[in-house]
Amino acid sequence: MKTITVGLIGVTGYTGMELTRLLVSHPAMRLVMACSRAEAGKKLGEHYPFLANQPGADVVITPPDAKAAAALCDLVFLAVPHKAAMELAAELLEAGVKVVDLSADFRLHDAKVYEEWYGVEHTRQHLLPEAAYGLPELYAEQTAQARLVANPGCYPSSIILALHAAFAHDLIQAEDIIADSKSGTTGAGRKATVSSLYCEVVDSFRAYNIGGKHRHTPEIEQELSRMAGKEVIVSFNPHLLPINRGILSTIYTKLKDPATTLDAVHQAYCQTWQGSQWVRVLPKGKLPETRNVRGTMFCDIGLALDQRTGRLIVVSAIDNLCRGASGQALANANLMCGLPVSTGLLLAPLMP
Amino acid sequence: MKTITVGLIGVTGYTGMELTRLLVSHPAMRLVMACSRAEAGKKLGEHYPFLANQPGADVVITPPDAKAAAALCDLVFLAVPHKAAMELAAELLEAGVKVVDLSADFRLHDAKVYEEWYGVEHTRQHLLPEAAYGLPELYAEQTAQARLVANPGCYPSSIILALHAAFAHDLIQAEDIIADSKSGTTGAGRKATVSSLYCEVVDSFRAYNIGGKHRHTPEIEQELSRMAGKEVIVSFNPHLLPINRGILSTIYTKLKDPATTLDAVHQAYCQTWQGSQWVRVLPKGKLPETRNVRGTMFCDIGLALDQRTGRLIVVSAIDNLCRGASGQALANANLMCGLPVSTGLLLAPLMP
Amino acid sequence: MKTITVGLIGVTGYTGMELTRLLVSHPAMRLVMACSRAEAGKKLGEHYPFLANQPGADVVITPPDAKAAAALCDLVFLAVPHKAAMELAAELLEAGVKVVDLSADFRLHDAKVYEEWYGVEHTRQHLLPEAAYGLPELYAEQTAQARLVANPGCYPSSIILALHAAFAHDLIQAEDIIADSKSGTTGAGRKATVSSLYCEVVDSFRAYNIGGKHRHTPEIEQELSRMAGKEVIVSFNPHLLPINRGILSTIYTKLKDPATTLDAVHQAYCQTWQGSQWVRVLPKGKLPETRNVRGTMFCDIGLALDQRTGRLIVVSAIDNLCRGASGQALANANLMCGLPVSTGLLLAPLMP
Amino acid sequence: MKTITVGLIGVTGYTGMELTRLLVSHPAMRLVMACSRAEAGKKLGEHYPFLANQPGADVVITPPDAKAAAALCDLVFLAVPHKAAMELAAELLEAGVKVVDLSADFRLHDAKVYEEWYGVEHTRQHLLPEAAYGLPELYAEQTAQARLVANPGCYPSSIILALHAAFAHDLIQAEDIIADSKSGTTGAGRKATVSSLYCEVVDSFRAYNIGGKHRHTPEIEQELSRMAGKEVIVSFNPHLLPINRGILSTIYTKLKDPATTLDAVHQAYCQTWQGSQWVRVLPKGKLPETRNVRGTMFCDIGLALDQRTGRLIVVSAIDNLCRGASGQALANANLMCGLPVSTGLLLAPLMP
Repeated sequence: MKTITVGLIGVTGYTGMELTRLLVSHPAMRLVMACSRAEAGKKLGEHYPFLANQPGADVVITPPDAKAAAALCDLVFLAVPHKAAMELAAELLEAGVKVVDLSADFRLHDAKVYEEWYGVEHTRQHLLPEAAYGLPELYAEQTAQARLVANPGCYPSSIILALHAAFAHDLIQAEDIIADSKSGTTGAGRKATVSSLYCEVVDSFRAYNIGGKHRHTPEIEQELSRMAGKEVIVSFNPHLLPINRGILSTIYTKLKDPATTLDAVHQAYCQTWQGSQWVRVLPKGKLPETRNVRGTMFCDIGLALDQRTGRLIVVSAIDNLCRGASGQALANANLMCGLPVSTGLLLAPLMP
Repeated sequence: MKTITVGLIGVTGYTGMELTRLLVSHPAMRLVMACSRAEAGKKLGEHYPFLANQPGADVVITPPDAKAAAALCDLVFLAVPHKAAMELAAELLEAGVKVVDLSADFRLHDAKVYEEWYGVEHTRQHLLPEAAYGLPELYAEQTAQARLVANPGCYPSSIILALHAAFAHDLIQAEDIIADSKSGTTGAGRKATVSSLYCEVVDSFRAYNIGGKHRHTPEIEQELSRMAGKEVIVSFNPHLLPINRGILSTIYTKLKDPATTLDAVHQAYCQTWQGSQWVRVLPKGKLPETRNVRGTMFCDIGLALDQRTGRLIVVSAIDNLCRGASGQALANANLMCGLPVSTGLLLAPLMP
Repeated sequence: MKTITVGLIGVTGYTGMELTRLLVSHPAMRLVMACSRAEAGKKLGEHYPFLANQPGADVVITPPDAKAAAALCDLVFLAVPHKAAMELAAELLEAGVKVVDLSADFRLHDAKVYEEWYGVEHTRQHLLPEAAYGLPELYAEQTAQARLVANPGCYPSSIILALHAAFAHDLIQAEDIIADSKSGTTGAGRKATVSSLYCEVVDSFRAYNIGGKHRHTPEIEQELSRMAGKEVIVSFNPHLLPINRGILSTIYTKLKDPATTLDAVHQAYCQTWQGSQWVRVLPKGKLPETRNVRGTMFCDIGLALDQRTGRLIVVSAIDNLCRGASGQALANANLMCGLPVSTGLLLAPLMP
Repeated sequence: MKTITVGLIGVTGYTGMELTRLLVSHPAMRLVMACSRAEAGKKLGEHYPFLANQPGADVVITPPDAKAAAALCDLVFLAVPHKAAMELAAELLEAGVKVVDLSADFRLHDAKVYEEWYGVEHTRQHLLPEAAYGLPELYAEQTAQARLVANPGCYPSSIILALHAAFAHDLIQAEDIIADSKSGTTGAGRKATVSSLYCEVVDSFRAYNIGGKHRHTPEIEQELSRMAGKEVIVSFNPHLLPINRGILSTIYTKLKDPATTLDAVHQAYCQTWQGSQWVRVLPKGKLPETRNVRGTMFCDIGLALDQRTGRLIVVSAIDNLCRGASGQALANANLMCGLPVSTGLLLAPLMP
């Protein structure tokens, strides 16, 4: 295998950290550039002692620089805040480097919707049409052709994968979908804030941004609407879990035909996901746990029927950092570079 | 204050443990009897080192015995499994002792519903009519008159308190209520099982018994139906949190009038709970966290409107062991003994 | 009981937060002033939602002001960083207010030692002679007479209480004492730093400042030297635990007489601490757990002899926030105000 | 690479579970047999949902059977309790299968010492001389020749690796070594006991079996004595951490020459471990954290001098399940089968 050289702009957050971890196991990609203004000058293995003695540890952190990136890298991962990503992506593409952007900047096809939810101007709208929405199970072909991939959000990944089979088999109504999602604390990022301190998070649980206020709402609706073939309005309600990694989404949908049996739904899901490496439809009666997907690309799906209320409840579990961010980014990079999508990503969950 | 002597049958579970903790701070009740077959012969302070040097520590654990209880106690708390509670309660009442039963045996007015959900025969149905449902905010008067109180379940306490004001003000529909509840692990009890081991629970999250399979469902529906004045079917879906204590319920309801504003809902809630010692309606825009009620009788309520879907989302947080079990039992005992309901229960949350 | 009015300067840290919690249960003290520059203008109950509906919640936070404090308060607690405490204490004393200082500024009798370890000038050395070292079991009388109390450090409290009986009975050598201490994360304070984030602390464990580098070393040595009647050099080595509250110190000492039996040591400890409300010598063979003292003033002590190495190992557990800081401060305030030392402090541990 | 077929007897504990995880990533070994009486008949992937869709998931669990093992496997891992391992190992060896025994049965060269500490007769003493003590850094050659490997204990692995360089460079005295070790809860095993329940372990910390009572003591002393060239008596004192994985040992030793500098010690350690894949000597001033080795074979070592007490303090961190048990077992199996020791074991730590 020819070695593919990759760069990472934004190493100090959890998604950047996760990428450095995953690249250690990648047989064909080599991290040759790691950027951060704050930590420039240090070696990666100094900044992250867990990396010492492993591939990538000797890379010296440098300030972000698109031209330097173009000289060194076949592909660059952007793990920087939205808006900053937009500008960097454009510069990198211009310099001829492929880009996987982990921010939200190219996820929404409609720049107006982006500007409304993110409160900033979209200054690179011309790139939106070519940006592939990098959910490998749904967009592998576009991704393989793309030079710019918008890596999906963590919550959307858990919800879109959970409902894909239900829409594909026309089992559920497009109306009245409620997603009650719970995320581990890495989802809150690695900024130093009192509300993310150990003693503020541990042994507690809370909801936040409920009632349609979370920025992942339009992204979820964009993709579900495409699946449903009509506009879908979702009530998306996130919560913060005292765990490191993992999202569990409990999704309440309404069956089109209330007489549909759990057997039929289960069979439909199994059929859709047959052969999938990463989406695992659990046996009937079993429900997912976030630990079973820890550190991996797996998406575990459990199904329940509430017959008394005519609702199909779909529960999905993913690792928000791996499947919900950096692992998916790496899968997209694999596709963009002509490698099998799962290269370097067939890791077993860490249990317990 | 005259000292009231109380007994506790079932000391080895978390609800029994919590009662011993709360009785340490009670100025008018004295624990004089503690029963457990498995631990008989030990002093309470030996069995629970945290109790050493405090009121109750010197009580010697004895096997359960209704007659001995009658001789020693004004009131007995039953913290034993359902079905066992039924028999013990009958014996104790016959012997002239007041009973607060923490099991489910006398919560459901309809013995048939009980038998269907709990899978055992109800052999003491004649006691059902006199059993008060011990949610102090709603049933203080009946409780004060009762010699038998059915202490509410933990999940039902969190959901009934959350929706009381909404029904009282006729704000929500009786149809299509979904409760997505998350409970701390003490709710799973203190039995030695692999699934409750530290390494199986920590750093993970899961749903269980969703789709209308949890036994608290009929209890929730009984009380909500009474409030609504018509039959309510609830989709109740519990989850297991890696925390010790706390339930957070996120409850999705439909407004009767979609034009109702958050201001109006908030005002209605504030009016209903004005003057309540324990139910705290949070300021608009704030959402509850389980830690803020840790170890206490508080029920914190937060409100959100999802205008795009016409739903009122009510989020409530309680401590499942204190408000959801033993603290509420003590409040009921206070009422049954003519004491102010909050006697011994004005503790501040342990933070953090 | 006459109500004693108290103030708290520094509300935003964990020791300030803990004081507000403890004052809720205090029958004779009332919090009338709470100071913080950053949060001035808010009500305490707004800043700390856990406090809502309880005594103290309505106090409006103000900027620190010694004169205002003197006008309102009988006594003030200082929960501010060292050096800042020094100045405030002096101003408050001058204005006639009693002061319990939770910082390190008045703990070391020798200003030179202070300056060496804390790296700042001690500008109020004239107050050192009158400052009582507020460990109630050892200095109750001085504290009762004092207008300035230096509240002991958390680690020192756990170690001094652990060894007091051993020195009192002349059981151990003054040489070669090693304290391997482990503290919960509240001990790291409530500042927003990456190293205290949930995801950096949870599911991990580490040592820090070992080899005699921690500032609590001279405080421990000052008090042990007094007990031993000669200079004691301690190897003090702290570690950070992924728990909220609690310090467990495992202290390795050498017996003066290697033939001393565990029975004899245990008897000596029991004799010394007989009648103590808070220091609990565990039965032989039992070892303390931090949870058994959670939220309280208890100090649990367990004993073991390593006969093969001639070492007496003393293990002590305290709550670093309550016994190790704010609870002890309140006990000292009780003494300074002529109240029984345990007023408002007879709380049961929160279990689990 | 020729595929090596391996069996695992004892799948239901944490060491068995960890082996199934590690074998997923092994390029040359294939799990073909998994044994457990309790779970016989199930597929591994049913028993452990985290394994679904991965190598090993389809293996049907069978009752232990040495003859069947011999027919199927080149090598068998024994993850069963001590004493049971002894018998199974003998049967397997007789049948011509290589054995890596994760129990303590063949770790102690002296059967008498074994019988004293483990309280059972050693019925297979004839195998002791040929059993290699499987710490790859020290015994790779013997292991490569062995048909029976005694896999080291978790605590001993952390302590022996920590002190090897110090003894190799003759830096420390053989006398007065104290190891204060802290282990994650997987070390307590996967048996259903109240003391290992989530709510009993979380948010607490405790010592156990201190004062020379833990069974790993003779194993530590056997190996340190060999290193020191004279009898070493260690005071080994274990503690239980509320984390899943990880052991941190803080080891207090006495320098032979009190004038030795930290520079010199650090240099000696770096020289000894230069080129080691897994033992990482941290930069001066840095101390290990258990998270940095999570899920891996790394052993991180930090050094501190307490000059005032003449002590060298060595802090080591390993993953008790991987390096302290199953990963090390796999490394030994690699050596026994002629593979590079790190085959399948170059995984990055899961962070965070």
